[in-house]
Amino acid sequence: MASPVVGADDVAAPLAGRDILVCDTTLRDGAHSVAHQFRAADVRAIAGGLDAAGVNVIEVTHGDGLGGSSFNYGFSAEDDIDLITAARGVIKNAKLAALLLPGIGTLDDLKRAHDAGIDVVRVATHCTEADISLEHLHGAKKLGLETVGFLMMSHMVGPNRLATEAEIMRDAGADTVYVVDSAGAMLPHQVVERVEAVRARLGDDMLIGMHAHNNLGSGVANALAAAAAGVSIVDGSLHGLGAGAGNAATEVLAAALDRSGARTSVHTLELIDVAEDIVAEICKGKLPKLDRGSLLLGYAGIYSSFLLHTRRAAARYGVSEAEILLELGRRRVVGGQEDMIIDVAIELAGIQLPD
Amino acid sequence: MASPVVGADDVAAPLAGRDILVCDTTLRDGAHSVAHQFRAADVRAIAGGLDAAGVNVIEVTHGDGLGGSSFNYGFSAEDDIDLITAARGVIKNAKLAALLLPGIGTLDDLKRAHDAGIDVVRVATHCTEADISLEHLHGAKKLGLETVGFLMMSHMVGPNRLATEAEIMRDAGADTVYVVDSAGAMLPHQVVERVEAVRARLGDDMLIGMHAHNNLGSGVANALAAAAAGVSIVDGSLHGLGAGAGNAATEVLAAALDRSGARTSVHTLELIDVAEDIVAEICKGKLPKLDRGSLLLGYAGIYSSFLLHTRRAAARYGVSEAEILLELGRRRVVGGQEDMIIDVAIELAGIQLPD
Repeated sequence: MASPVVGADDVAAPLAGRDILVCDTTLRDGAHSVAHQFRAADVRAIAGGLDAAGVNVIEVTHGDGLGGSSFNYGFSAEDDIDLITAARGVIKNAKLAALLLPGIGTLDDLKRAHDAGIDVVRVATHCTEADISLEHLHGAKKLGLETVGFLMMSHMVGPNRLATEAEIMRDAGADTVYVVDSAGAMLPHQVVERVEAVRARLGDDMLIGMHAHNNLGSGVANALAAAAAGVSIVDGSLHGLGAGAGNAATEVLAAALDRSGARTSVHTLELIDVAEDIVAEICKGKLPKLDRGSLLLGYAGIYSSFLLHTRRAAARYGVSEAEILLELGRRRVVGGQEDMIIDVAIELAGIQLPD
Repeated sequence: MASPVVGADDVAAPLAGRDILVCDTTLRDGAHSVAHQFRAADVRAIAGGLDAAGVNVIEVTHGDGLGGSSFNYGFSAEDDIDLITAARGVIKNAKLAALLLPGIGTLDDLKRAHDAGIDVVRVATHCTEADISLEHLHGAKKLGLETVGFLMMSHMVGPNRLATEAEIMRDAGADTVYVVDSAGAMLPHQVVERVEAVRARLGDDMLIGMHAHNNLGSGVANALAAAAAGVSIVDGSLHGLGAGAGNAATEVLAAALDRSGARTSVHTLELIDVAEDIVAEICKGKLPKLDRGSLLLGYAGIYSSFLLHTRRAAARYGVSEAEILLELGRRRVVGGQEDMIIDVAIELAGIQLPD
């Protein structure tokens, strides 16, 4: 929607004339904020509001994607397929997307999601493991789905390596590749360098997306910087719902895109009302916070699944939560290596283990 | 403090080798969040924590500056001078600052603040009214104070005009001039253009500062962008306490400055603890929110004092709060013109007034 008339008029708008798509992940990444307890009624209310407000893509799945509902990642209140079906029933214009992490979600899960009506699958891997996305990207293309390759924890590799991984996903059939700042550890300059590298490698015709978290307070600015660097689709979630300090808030992002001169299909004022009147009500007391825990995750460059365990280990061994997280950051841990928390805590506590 | 080892090592840090000073305004702008009810004990705890964590400047005053305690702006729990005295008693290294708005604070107020031990006065005017700062800047220099010219609502004029106003303050004796985004209405590109214009006009030796609010979710990024454009001191407040959606959070800013390669005297982990263990406790339930109200202020480019009155007028006349704010933005209202809210509400409601 066009920007309201405000501010000085002698400043060039960096996104003037640019078409930017908006993807909302309240009902997927945002599920982390509510321990995956969204119900079909919530999905209908939120997805319906997002669709009416002109959002382009709406993602609906367990926070860890299709098949995420489990002892390890937390059980959903309702099955992914039921939630996707609920969204399908209310969405008129937007595309409906699901997330899939190879190793968690299977090709069978994908087929069921396809049958329930998704248009897009976002296949997510750690930023150095694009090669494990091939089977699912191929499978998705066979089903006729639009495909996204989602490179998580993109701050952990430099621009060139990230471009190489993006190329692997592109070659496997990804229609769009995403730079994903899962730990909210990036600042705008780092986003720009990565987007530019991917763009230089894959060409201007390749669609690139940006998924930004707010652990360093820079989610919105990172999405804007990505757009200015050539990204054509940006993620957000209403009220920033999501892992860690949450995502760039979609309603804030929409306002900022307007103020940057971008053309979007989003009705910003309507979207603000969906955030405030629907999401804030459903998620009362559960909106994400930029507090010590989430800030330290961004500062250390660690995924949010480490926080709770680190807090427990810090208390148990009488060492600093911050020091554990920073040391884990130095060791470049990734999801699945949560057992290293205890090693680091013991080491920091100066405890000698018996031989 | 040096950045922790995280992320990719092939990305250039935009503030590498740059010395950046940090000014914290929890105890001044942050007073807006607690309706100016900070007490001397709060000031001692917070200022003491900030000082120990290496912050360079600590501002302590009513949210609207010296003399702000009044029916119009809200009464303080304790007199400014008592709060300044309390801060003076605990600060060992930082400079102690007070805000003064000509028309609210007087030269007498300034003398009392000087006697109570401030080192710095920040003289604040609307961005087009630098000329009303002259008397106070002159008076401050006579008292031997360090002086800051604080150009509020800087989004409302273009870079060149802002540079002209900055020049007026410089010529009146301001040691530093600040670009102040009072309405949180700016995005990084607008900050950069303004800082560059001021710098081009006043020369590289002139000290420039940035005061950023978070109404468009861009406070931290705006401060970083300002630093990269040549600003040498950036404002924040712990947990972002302050008007509207609050300021750039000092503890987040410190983490982001570290990650940008800047040299600061701030101990980031200690500062995070002050935010969480002291400020969040004192201000429980009062931390600023990026919600519909504060977002609309940033989107419309309106100062936060308009929000409560607009909400009342919207309810009374049955019109949209958002539409009133956006129309006020188009009319470029400034603090003191709150009566226009009713005019706009009546007009939007289509009410014919009797002749």
